[in-house]
Parts: sequence; C-alpha cells; structure tokens
Amino acid sequence: MPHIPVLAAEEIIRAGRRMDQRGWVPATAGNISVRIEGPRIAITCSGGHKGFLDSFSVIEVDADARVVTPGARPSAETRLHCQIYRAFPDAGAVLHGHSVANTVLSLEEPGPALSFSGYEVQKIFAGQTTHDATLHLPLFDNDQDMARLAGVVAPHLPGMTMGYLIRGHGVYVWGPNMDMALARLEGLEFLLACALERRRK
Amino acid sequence: MPHIPVLAAEEIIRAGRRMDQRGWVPATAGNISVRIEGPRIAITCSGGHKGFLDSFSVIEVDADARVVTPGARPSAETRLHCQIYRAFPDAGAVLHGHSVANTVLSLEEPGPALSFSGYEVQKIFAGQTTHDATLHLPLFDNDQDMARLAGVVAPHLPGMTMGYLIRGHGVYVWGPNMDMALARLEGLEFLLACALERRRK
Amino acid sequence: MPHIPVLAAEEIIRAGRRMDQRGWVPATAGNISVRIEGPRIAITCSGGHKGFLDSFSVIEVDADARVVTPGARPSAETRLHCQIYRAFPDAGAVLHGHSVANTVLSLEEPGPALSFSGYEVQKIFAGQTTHDATLHLPLFDNDQDMARLAGVVAPHLPGMTMGYLIRGHGVYVWGPNMDMALARLEGLEFLLACALERRRK
Amino acid sequence: MPHIPVLAAEEIIRAGRRMDQRGWVPATAGNISVRIEGPRIAITCSGGHKGFLDSFSVIEVDADARVVTPGARPSAETRLHCQIYRAFPDAGAVLHGHSVANTVLSLEEPGPALSFSGYEVQKIFAGQTTHDATLHLPLFDNDQDMARLAGVVAPHLPGMTMGYLIRGHGVYVWGPNMDMALARLEGLEFLLACALERRRK
Repeated sequence: MPHIPVLAAEEIIRAGRRMDQRGWVPATAGNISVRIEGPRIAITCSGGHKGFLDSFSVIEVDADARVVTPGARPSAETRLHCQIYRAFPDAGAVLHGHSVANTVLSLEEPGPALSFSGYEVQKIFAGQTTHDATLHLPLFDNDQDMARLAGVVAPHLPGMTMGYLIRGHGVYVWGPNMDMALARLEGLEFLLACALERRRK
Repeated sequence: MPHIPVLAAEEIIRAGRRMDQRGWVPATAGNISVRIEGPRIAITCSGGHKGFLDSFSVIEVDADARVVTPGARPSAETRLHCQIYRAFPDAGAVLHGHSVANTVLSLEEPGPALSFSGYEVQKIFAGQTTHDATLHLPLFDNDQDMARLAGVVAPHLPGMTMGYLIRGHGVYVWGPNMDMALARLEGLEFLLACALERRRK
Repeated sequence: MPHIPVLAAEEIIRAGRRMDQRGWVPATAGNISVRIEGPRIAITCSGGHKGFLDSFSVIEVDADARVVTPGARPSAETRLHCQIYRAFPDAGAVLHGHSVANTVLSLEEPGPALSFSGYEVQKIFAGQTTHDATLHLPLFDNDQDMARLAGVVAPHLPGMTMGYLIRGHGVYVWGPNMDMALARLEGLEFLLACALERRRK
Repeated sequence: MPHIPVLAAEEIIRAGRRMDQRGWVPATAGNISVRIEGPRIAITCSGGHKGFLDSFSVIEVDADARVVTPGARPSAETRLHCQIYRAFPDAGAVLHGHSVANTVLSLEEPGPALSFSGYEVQKIFAGQTTHDATLHLPLFDNDQDMARLAGVVAPHLPGMTMGYLIRGHGVYVWGPNMDMALARLEGLEFLLACALERRRK
C-alpha cells in the first residue's frame, strides 16, 4: 500500500477502536475514512470488524470512489464518503456508525428529520455558538442501491450541520480532522441517547 | 491436552474475553466452541467464568458429545454445539451467551419466534443481501433435559438463518470461523437491544 | 500488616477492580472481605474507592468485628460480613455492592422480597439445579444503626439462597471463594437488571 | 508551563480519563480543575477531548479567572470554577461533566431543584451521616453569558451540599481533593441514574 500514509491508516485504526468501545460498529457495520490529499481518500475496505482493523483493512480510492489500491474490495458506502469530501472541501475525516439509539430513533421517527435544541453539546457542530438554537438531523430511507441513495442525499448536503441519518443504517458525521470528526460523532450520539431517553418518559 | 491445537484454545479464550466485555457471559453462563477437524470440536468445560478462561478450560469432544480429553467435565450444553456442527458442515465456531436483552425478550415474547426487518445489520447473516427482508429468531422453551431440548431444536435447524433463542437461557449463534461467529453474535445482540428498546416506546 | 496473607489482599483488590468496571461500587460504596482462617477475616477498611484499593486498604478483624490491624478504621458494615461468616461456615468471601438496578428495585418494591423464576442463571446459587424454581431475595429497610440492622437480618440468614438486599443500600452476596462470590454477584445483578427491565414493559 | 506542578496536571489528566470511561465528557464537553495554592488554580483549557488530555491541555488562572499561562485559551466556564474555589476555601478540585442522566433530568424537570432521599450513597456529600435526609441539587437555566450565569448561581453557593446542575449543560461538583471530587461526582451520577430510572416506572 504505497499510497496510504502511515498516519492516515493509524488514525482510521484508532477511530475504529474508539467506535467499538462505544458500541457503534456492531458486527461488520460502519466505515471510516480520512482525506489523504485533494480528492484521494483512505477508507476501510468491505467487511471485517471495525474495532480490530490493521493497515491491510485500509484502501485508497479516488474522487469517484474508484479503488486505487490493487486488488482491494471497497465498501458499498465508499460513494457516500466521497460525496461528503466533494461537498465539504474542509472535511478531513468521515465516520459512519450504527448505535442502538440512532437505529431505534431512525425507525421510530416517521418524519424527515430529528430536531435538537437546548443542549450545550450542540456547540460541537460547525458554526454553532449557543444551546438556544434548533439543529436538524436529516433522515433518509435506507436503500441497497448506493448510487440512488447518494442521489437522494446530495441536494441536502449544502448547509448540512450535524450530518445525516439513514433509517436502520446509522449516521454519517465529518470534521476537519479525525479528532473533530470523532468529537462530533460522540456529541451526536450523546444527543441521540438523550432524545431516545426523553421519548421514554 | 495433546489433541487441542493451541490456536483453537486461543480463539476460545479470546472470544470469552470479548463476550465478557459485552456482558454476555454473566456468572458461569455461556459456552464457546470451535471445530478442530471433521466432527471433533474444542469446547469450554463445565463451570468457570467465560471471561477468564485458560487452556485448561478447553476440552475436546467427538461428534456425539463424548469427551476425549481425559478427566474433563463437559458442559451439559455440549450436545447442542455438536448438533449445530452436524447440521451445518461449514460451521467453524459456535457461541452461546446470555444478555439482558435476549433474556428479557425471550421471557416477554409468548410466540415461537422474534422477527426483525428494516435493519442494515441483518446482512451479517448468511445469504442476506438487504435490510428489506424479514428474519426470524426461533424461540424454544428451556429444559434441563438437554437431550430432549436438542430433540425439540433439531427439526428447526435446517435453513435456520440467525441462530436460536432459549427462554431464559440465551442464544446460540455460529459462523464459518470465530471472527464471523462473534460478528454474528454482536449483530444479533444489536438487533435484540434495538427490539427491546422499541418495545419500551 | 503481618496477619493478612498477600493472596487475601490481592483477591480483595482484584474483586474491587471488577466491581468498579461493572459500576457496582460508586463513590466509596461497597465492601469486600475474605476469610483468612476460622473466624478471622480480611476486609476493606472504611472510605476510599473500592476500584482503586491497595494492600493498605485491607484490614484484619476477628469474629466479633474487632479490628486486629493496629490503627485501622473499620467500615460500619464489617459487622454484617462477620455475621455471614458465622452463619455460613463454608463462606470464603463476601461482597457488598450498589448497582442502579439493585438500588432502584429495592426502593420501588414495597414487599419483603424480590422473586425470580424461569432464568437459567438461577443455577449459580448453591443447591439450585433448574430454572424451574422460584428464588427469593429478602429485602430489608436500611438503618444507620448496624447492630440493629444485623439483628433484623440474623433470623433470615439460615437457608438464605441468593443473599439479601437493603433498601437504597445494596446487596450482600457470598461464596466458598472469591471467584464464586463474584460469579454469584454477577448472576444476581444480571437477574436484577432483567427484573428492572421487565418492569418497564 | 513553569507554574503548574506536575502532580496537578497528572490529577487532571487522570480525572479526564475516568470521566471519559464513564461517558461524562462527550465531544469536547466538561472541564476539570485543581487548586494549586490560594486562589491560583490549574484548569483544562478550551476545546479538546477531556479523555485524552496531556500537560499542554492544562493552564493556570488566578482568582479572577485571568489566565497566567502565556498564550493559553481559557474555557468560558473557568469563571464558574473560580467562583466555587472562592466560596469553598476547602475545595481542592472541581469537576464539570455532562451525562445522559443529568442532561435528560435537567431538561425534564421544570422545578428549581432535584431532590434525593433514602439512598445510602447520599453520605458521600460533606456533612451527611444518614440516608434518612433529603438533599437538593439546584437547577439553573443555561446561559451563554457566563458572567450572568455566575451571578445567578452565586447566592445559592453558601450551604450548597451536592453541587449544582445547569439545564442541558451538566453538573458542577467539588471536593477537598481530586479523589473525593471524583467520588462525589460518581455518587451524584449514580443518584441521577437511579432517579431517571425511577421516573420510567
């Protein structure tokens, strides 16, 4: 894997361990990427548990989700990662994970978004300066046709604040670097855990 | 223990630690096995905590659940493991664990199965390619007579997709190797945790 | 501490770490003891977090809960430990811990006991051979006067199966050795977690 | 950082790891301080995850929350820490964290305080000797203007027993040293977890 910098692979491996500790990558779910340079990204390959990654689990793809690493098997969701890097030039890392809270809320909520207000933690998202705002997490129906799903998501990406949620298929969150992407994912999962608990009142 | 390959014992010990971290082997509950060759399997012996296994905790049994390791004390559930290896020639590892979610759902649900649909994680099970399918987890009443319980389970094994659940007595899950068996168990427990949460709405 | 065998202190330290990992010794709650020989026991001293014990946290007391270790400060609950060792000559280790489940159930349940049936995990308790039995966990009101509380508990000790629960003040569980005491505590907490979840149906 | 004793930074780093393990510092939430001497304190700087602190994450401020460390960026909440050290001369460490339980309860409860009685764990707070007392955790509305929020909190500080809670913005807890501050935070979070669970009955 001559193209993938060691640091990129290490950050992906570390993110996978952290997501596993939190229970956000059950079975072989989830995928993790970092931007290497321009449109080139390093991303977890298809299959395998994201809590136990090694450098062979990370592959390189170009801006159109075409695999650069010889013989590598990309995950179907690679396309969704590339779409985010194109839409947000300052995105440096993208995380996709499944939690019990995000899965249950996505299946319970019939509307097009979940809304959050009154939480200090909202300030982890780009441009947010107060708890006294209402943030929306768009909710899309799941689809095994990733090209079609990407097409449904695309028009909603500009101005998207928190990331987005696919019904029964987890969240997508990003940040300028891996630490911030992980912090935003953790902030979002905290808000989702609170929202789920408040619905049980 | 001349018959048990070191790798088989190591995989069982590692699986026990992982199951313990997740809270799926409370007290001395659960058992874990891998296929050594043909009908011979390595399996955890009776008693002892599955989160703190060593090589002395692993014994060898033949296709009829007869103990090969001299002086070893087999678990009563050994018979259920052997039955799975016979029914599924490509099964390489079998896991049995108790979680709060699987125990509570098994005691709350009066019907013969739990059903799951709409979850991307369903694709961890053999032959599943979409969230848009309905999977069934058969549910059997517990019985201290393991021969009788095995007889009740047997006719349901062919074509079984997810594994099965015994009321108040945990799940059985398997895969072609330990990593996949663990991934399927984790996927199943994720689905069960979601199902339990959704019943609390 | 010339009287306390190294192994006794090590087992207490290890049990404290395990209980802390599970969330059963919040703040400075809980205490842990092992029988050294006859009526002499080693027990955690008053105060301090049970997840971060060292050998200075362990003191020796005699059958009447009198401190043998010079200058040591015993926990008020030491008396309850001694009472258990007297009542059960084969008790080798006693654990006292507070979980959210045991605390909430103890405060919600107005009756004199919690009952459990249908769980395979019930078999972890001495003499239990089937899920098809009903076990009782006696429930006592809390009292800052430990001598009086011990007097209320005493007549219920003979034949006690699971241990006992004090309202808002955690459980007492024991076993022939530390491993079995820990397994029984874990089994009991598993049953309590299930019972609490089933009340939320 | 010539002013900050190594031990002060180490205690803050350790506390951050512990709070992260418990899920109390999601995203970049929370902050942690210790008194160095008189009115001088060491405190986590603004931003960054509190579970992964290093000595560069800790800065020194004076009694009026003015930063002493050259070039350091203080957290807005530094003012609330300084206020606590002034009001409680024996306070040696202050912790601020967000849990799902404290966040949800703070947003569900319309009143000016949460009350607790009947829990043995209440005795972790200064001056408490029995479960048979009623303790109050004052609840304040969140405000992005920290000077104004500090002004609202100030008159309630004298005689405050448990700490206080800000709606959607976590708890403040303190103790004579870091170990006791951590034990009190853990005790408070245990009480809050019980209270939340009891509301779901």
